[in-house]
Amino acid sequence: MIKAGIIGATGYAGAELVRILKNHKDVEIVWLGSRSYIDEKYSKVYGNMFKLVDNICKDDDLVKLSKEADVIFTATPQGFLAGVLTDEILKNSKVVDLSADYRLKDVSVYEEWYKIEHKSPQYIENAVYGLCELHRDLITDRTRLVANPGCYTTCSILTAYPLVKEGIIDHKTLVIDAKSGTSGAGRGAKVPNLYCEVNENIKAYGVSNHRHTPEIEQELSLAANEPVLLNFTPHLVPMNRGILVTEYAKLNKKPDGSDYTEEDIRAAYEKYYAGEYFIRLLYKGQCPETKWVEGSNYVDINFVLDKRTGRVIMMGALDNLVKGAAGQAVQNMNLLFGFKENEGLDLVPCFP
Amino acid sequence: MIKAGIIGATGYAGAELVRILKNHKDVEIVWLGSRSYIDEKYSKVYGNMFKLVDNICKDDDLVKLSKEADVIFTATPQGFLAGVLTDEILKNSKVVDLSADYRLKDVSVYEEWYKIEHKSPQYIENAVYGLCELHRDLITDRTRLVANPGCYTTCSILTAYPLVKEGIIDHKTLVIDAKSGTSGAGRGAKVPNLYCEVNENIKAYGVSNHRHTPEIEQELSLAANEPVLLNFTPHLVPMNRGILVTEYAKLNKKPDGSDYTEEDIRAAYEKYYAGEYFIRLLYKGQCPETKWVEGSNYVDINFVLDKRTGRVIMMGALDNLVKGAAGQAVQNMNLLFGFKENEGLDLVPCFP
Amino acid sequence: MIKAGIIGATGYAGAELVRILKNHKDVEIVWLGSRSYIDEKYSKVYGNMFKLVDNICKDDDLVKLSKEADVIFTATPQGFLAGVLTDEILKNSKVVDLSADYRLKDVSVYEEWYKIEHKSPQYIENAVYGLCELHRDLITDRTRLVANPGCYTTCSILTAYPLVKEGIIDHKTLVIDAKSGTSGAGRGAKVPNLYCEVNENIKAYGVSNHRHTPEIEQELSLAANEPVLLNFTPHLVPMNRGILVTEYAKLNKKPDGSDYTEEDIRAAYEKYYAGEYFIRLLYKGQCPETKWVEGSNYVDINFVLDKRTGRVIMMGALDNLVKGAAGQAVQNMNLLFGFKENEGLDLVPCFP
Amino acid sequence: MIKAGIIGATGYAGAELVRILKNHKDVEIVWLGSRSYIDEKYSKVYGNMFKLVDNICKDDDLVKLSKEADVIFTATPQGFLAGVLTDEILKNSKVVDLSADYRLKDVSVYEEWYKIEHKSPQYIENAVYGLCELHRDLITDRTRLVANPGCYTTCSILTAYPLVKEGIIDHKTLVIDAKSGTSGAGRGAKVPNLYCEVNENIKAYGVSNHRHTPEIEQELSLAANEPVLLNFTPHLVPMNRGILVTEYAKLNKKPDGSDYTEEDIRAAYEKYYAGEYFIRLLYKGQCPETKWVEGSNYVDINFVLDKRTGRVIMMGALDNLVKGAAGQAVQNMNLLFGFKENEGLDLVPCFP
Repeated sequence: MIKAGIIGATGYAGAELVRILKNHKDVEIVWLGSRSYIDEKYSKVYGNMFKLVDNICKDDDLVKLSKEADVIFTATPQGFLAGVLTDEILKNSKVVDLSADYRLKDVSVYEEWYKIEHKSPQYIENAVYGLCELHRDLITDRTRLVANPGCYTTCSILTAYPLVKEGIIDHKTLVIDAKSGTSGAGRGAKVPNLYCEVNENIKAYGVSNHRHTPEIEQELSLAANEPVLLNFTPHLVPMNRGILVTEYAKLNKKPDGSDYTEEDIRAAYEKYYAGEYFIRLLYKGQCPETKWVEGSNYVDINFVLDKRTGRVIMMGALDNLVKGAAGQAVQNMNLLFGFKENEGLDLVPCFP
Repeated sequence: MIKAGIIGATGYAGAELVRILKNHKDVEIVWLGSRSYIDEKYSKVYGNMFKLVDNICKDDDLVKLSKEADVIFTATPQGFLAGVLTDEILKNSKVVDLSADYRLKDVSVYEEWYKIEHKSPQYIENAVYGLCELHRDLITDRTRLVANPGCYTTCSILTAYPLVKEGIIDHKTLVIDAKSGTSGAGRGAKVPNLYCEVNENIKAYGVSNHRHTPEIEQELSLAANEPVLLNFTPHLVPMNRGILVTEYAKLNKKPDGSDYTEEDIRAAYEKYYAGEYFIRLLYKGQCPETKWVEGSNYVDINFVLDKRTGRVIMMGALDNLVKGAAGQAVQNMNLLFGFKENEGLDLVPCFP
Repeated sequence: MIKAGIIGATGYAGAELVRILKNHKDVEIVWLGSRSYIDEKYSKVYGNMFKLVDNICKDDDLVKLSKEADVIFTATPQGFLAGVLTDEILKNSKVVDLSADYRLKDVSVYEEWYKIEHKSPQYIENAVYGLCELHRDLITDRTRLVANPGCYTTCSILTAYPLVKEGIIDHKTLVIDAKSGTSGAGRGAKVPNLYCEVNENIKAYGVSNHRHTPEIEQELSLAANEPVLLNFTPHLVPMNRGILVTEYAKLNKKPDGSDYTEEDIRAAYEKYYAGEYFIRLLYKGQCPETKWVEGSNYVDINFVLDKRTGRVIMMGALDNLVKGAAGQAVQNMNLLFGFKENEGLDLVPCFP
Repeated sequence: MIKAGIIGATGYAGAELVRILKNHKDVEIVWLGSRSYIDEKYSKVYGNMFKLVDNICKDDDLVKLSKEADVIFTATPQGFLAGVLTDEILKNSKVVDLSADYRLKDVSVYEEWYKIEHKSPQYIENAVYGLCELHRDLITDRTRLVANPGCYTTCSILTAYPLVKEGIIDHKTLVIDAKSGTSGAGRGAKVPNLYCEVNENIKAYGVSNHRHTPEIEQELSLAANEPVLLNFTPHLVPMNRGILVTEYAKLNKKPDGSDYTEEDIRAAYEKYYAGEYFIRLLYKGQCPETKWVEGSNYVDINFVLDKRTGRVIMMGALDNLVKGAAGQAVQNMNLLFGFKENEGLDLVPCFP
């Protein structure tokens, strides 16, 4: 039984961490930090937790928390963790950071896209980018700091990874069109997130400048073994949870000059994902639906080969609060502490 | 480990049974019956179950199933079970019926409200009305047939029960205004249940003649120890899950002629529900919200005393597919087999 | 052609006024007042008005506005108009107030329910309560100040009015259960109005103390010719627009001791509403649906007589932003200026 | 005053035609054809039309109708009109066909994508593809048959047209990712269109084989003056109305080898659309939102130039039932009869 603390526990991602950890047999929650609700009962902020969580919200003193917890989850605004992280904290406790502070290996890219100065770039090198399916080997009992990937990025990367890695698609033609439920926008009280503004509406946002772009490019560049530049366009969809990505790319030719077949493409996905518990490569012809993964840690993936245009259309779906945030954070925690990777994560998707 | 079969497994209630039983440590699902999808993979009908449920849909042969299963759940249309139930089936297996066939003790009331002839009234007497919180003592290892209560009825009865039982309210003035998500309408392909017809819309239906009325009256009559007649009005709400009831009644006077106070009313609720795992009596001033119980087996209850009008407004919320159907069915199963009553039901409500 | 100004033009009710007046052949909008968006283009706040409305948002200087406009609509917070209204303004311009400041004839009731001091009670007496169907005779070219009714109140009153007026129901037993879309909560950036908090959720609020209660009681008391006390319970529904009320009351006996029949009740509704353009008494058996009135100024009404319980269940539906706010305000304006009552209001409900 | 008949009047597009024509000063509706509801009151099928439309539904006898009407709208399944159209009908009446029967100039393409034989290809040549902004000159008092464009196609074509026409983008790289509300799926009672299946869900469908693809390609090929092949992927969004397209393409170089600038691109859009009443080129930086055009005949368009990747991201939004169906049909009718092009179409978008 390890002890866990959450900073930013009253945001949606923080609340989802509470929901998941609540049923994790090896974890006790010892600290729910929330700057906005200090000293209030957590179950008054999240009524679903009434009779389930007795904690009173605490502050965000990471040093103190690090002495009480084996693992700290930070579901905090960009720049927060970078501003307070110290060697002492990392010595006392492992940290899984759900913000973007340690995801980008190149600090100048971080500062350009996030428009803030990075206050502790010295920790970037040893931070592990916690996309478990790609970097599992690096997430061990010796790892101190995990940069939990973004919601869009997890979905975008996993959907294209095998085809980039195997050179089946021409990454120069890769376009990612993403659609997200509104919980991704957080619990901040802003007019654009009001019910009446989101409901019965769909729009793109952050076109050509969304901050998850360089994160996707970083990981796909590793796969391609050369720099990848792509377009990533997120859209806001009137639903609570779920991300769907639709990705388009031209097929390369095989080394022998022939065309890749559907079987080749499926084989590439299976090569990397056949053994992955949380990735479901769907039946031929089925398009992923966000509803089928709701509440779970699964990523559903499939593709269509369009011979007419020479493109492959890749599709992926996940729950942005689970595999896109809290679930993946727990998956990382499981790896950090040597628990079974899916411990506490055998969440059955809820339908309807 | 017991063996369970579900008839009507591809309806929404049946699918929720699968979701819950999937994580129940003492149950193995051996039969998923679905007249519409015989021989199809269950995971092709419910994509959320891909890689989780391998079963092929079977027919609805209850005799055969009863030989293979320790418990049968029937999530079937009204009249189905009454038409096929036999002594043999009940000898072979316990049955938890999610339809209305054995809920009403007076067969003439059933036939009047349901407009169908009851084909096996001989089983009504020994069937237990499985509202666990009220009839727990009758649901034992000797019970063969449980009539699982309706979704509206579970919520309506539990919300008013202590105040009727204690004579605090005048049941002649009781009015129940209920609101339900659309999954309660089932998965049948009907125009009124289409997305565009339900979305951005609210309406009442079944006004003065909804079939759950006599069921509520039956149980509250038991509580009142005299016949209760009431108005129950359901409404269709544009959401998937959840039932909220708002109930109105005039307060009686205390035996000494004085007025009941808020404390009296709260004490009555606590008298009956303080020890109930699945009933949450909320903080004073909080109104139940369906979202706070979504995906869980909880019923959230609270009330407001309006001294100005001499009425108490009672409110209750539950997830119609869980405590209003599949969850309660599993709760009944747990009692039938001597499992912990909340085994497999410690589902944390999912928010948002 | 008259000139109209709107204060509070960037709230939802204000925006709906713009939408309606835009197509009103006798009105020119000369002032869009919005404290929050002064000097911004209105079409940048409401993108739907791009290329349709060129106005720049102005301040809320009523004195100045009154010199430029023939009619002022105030869609402002409670207390605003009462705090600034002067004889000069009323001499210069007619005022249709969409706030509650002049709706309640008894200033002490206003101050008790709204918890604010009324700053100009001297204008209450001559203000007309602008529920056109009831007080049409008082809304004339000599009227200076109209108190436009609340959204819930318009629906609640009109649904019960004929039966109270004719003494068909016992108003002491009257219970009003109301359901509203989320636009009624306004455009303020508050956590409870966020998409993820409202979506897939229903709850009651303001139980026993909602401010529309005394307004409903005031008008039904006039109808009953004696004080009416009732319970009014609003609920928040996950949809943008629409109010549905479900009202319950015991039937009185006829003067001759016999029971009122369905025909009697229908006749009462027809007596008052047969000639009303904006009230639609539905076919027998049809329950009003908010979707059928969306975007229009109609109120749809119907009822069910439940002989079993001796109650009548009355139902009414309207669009809270139209007949519940801006549409009714324009209807009042039409009466004030002698235009055709439905001028600019022949809005066909939009489905789906 | 002309006389209009609608075949398929009880589908969503047919109902929208009724809504729009109801307020068209030059049109009288004389025939509402609906195979499913013959002899029923239209206002019982569409409650919004109660007291507004008195018609009884008729059959789909086009010959008879053509003798009574000046214009016939066919909002019917693919193949219906092609199966019944005759010279006589076209001599008696003009026809605006909302199905796909006469949209594709190459009958073999029609038969390949629609998998049905075309029964009257002889009418294709003289049918005008009624995308008014592109083919206005061909829609005159001499035109007998207009093929009203599809919803996705109208949005997809108009969003890209100026940039293809001017050679600013490389059409070989064009990818169209489209998102539609559910009314586009029609009013048929099918499980995938049920509320609970669509709500809280998003998915792609018809990937690489959606029937609107060749229609988009046909028109953009005309613009490019060479064959255009592209990927078009529709998605189903949990909302009633609205289509958003997000289109991606690589920029060509200018003839002088330099890069196209944002100003160049905007100038191209303005060249074609500056005078278009129904096309709104948004403020720089604003992304189109479907909600801003809801209920209206507008198409909102904008773009982002991404210098980093050398792509332009084009975005367009419309209401699929208005500009995507019934509104455009009325726009065509206005051109056919020499009415003002926006007569009856000055519908102000409804928000929220």
